[in-house]
Amino acid sequence: MSDFLLHPQLLTDSHPVCELALCSVRLMDDARFPWLILVPRQPFLRELMDLAAEDQLTLLKEVNRAGRVLQRLYPADKLNIAALGNMVPQLHVHVIARRRDDEAWPRPVWGAGNARPYAPDRLGRDLAALATALTGA
Amino acid sequence: MSDFLLHPQLLTDSHPVCELALCSVRLMDDARFPWLILVPRQPFLRELMDLAAEDQLTLLKEVNRAGRVLQRLYPADKLNIAALGNMVPQLHVHVIARRRDDEAWPRPVWGAGNARPYAPDRLGRDLAALATALTGA
Repeated sequence: MSDFLLHPQLLTDSHPVCELALCSVRLMDDARFPWLILVPRQPFLRELMDLAAEDQLTLLKEVNRAGRVLQRLYPADKLNIAALGNMVPQLHVHVIARRRDDEAWPRPVWGAGNARPYAPDRLGRDLAALATALTGA
Repeated sequence: MSDFLLHPQLLTDSHPVCELALCSVRLMDDARFPWLILVPRQPFLRELMDLAAEDQLTLLKEVNRAGRVLQRLYPADKLNIAALGNMVPQLHVHVIARRRDDEAWPRPVWGAGNARPYAPDRLGRDLAALATALTGA
């Protein structure tokens, strides 16, 4: 675990929400979409298959949790879940709540226009609500 | 299982490869990208979380298998794995082998230009090779 470093691009693009057993959870700084990033805290991961089987299972549970929390806190017609990594090679999983009236629907969010950074007050509220829901019972 | 029907859009856009324990595996008819679709054979699924925990685990194993097979049979700089479902609401998971010189890189494949259907002879060869690798030891 000690060699784990978050990729600089993820540091720049997102805000820390909380730490789960396996993953650091981040909120993408794009107020258009409720968009979490889960990053397993292990060094040198690129593909899902680079994770040990038991850690993949933990990742799956944490993705489930993230999805349920987004559905609870935000209007969500559909979840989008993806491990792409074409731009940022460090393994990370996107969990995004989509609405039929969001700016990119029905297209994926990646590359859809420009991010709209959160206003500071809303950012603080959303980060707190997400952290409470993700780490709560 | 008896109520399972493949969504008509998936039937139109892809070719059958093989049946795994949980999923029907399909090859998207787009020769630009080695692109598998895994569809759990259960009715009324929309989200990953709609699957029972044990079936999610099976799905994870089948996604791993699909990813490894693509890496073995095709040049692959990165795998893209995603459950989106904005267009086709039936739960399905994309497993795509990406190359740094493919037509969409580094963007996602969805919405990137027009699909290029497989030539019949190549389609037959690829389907056979994929089926053998996916169902083999």
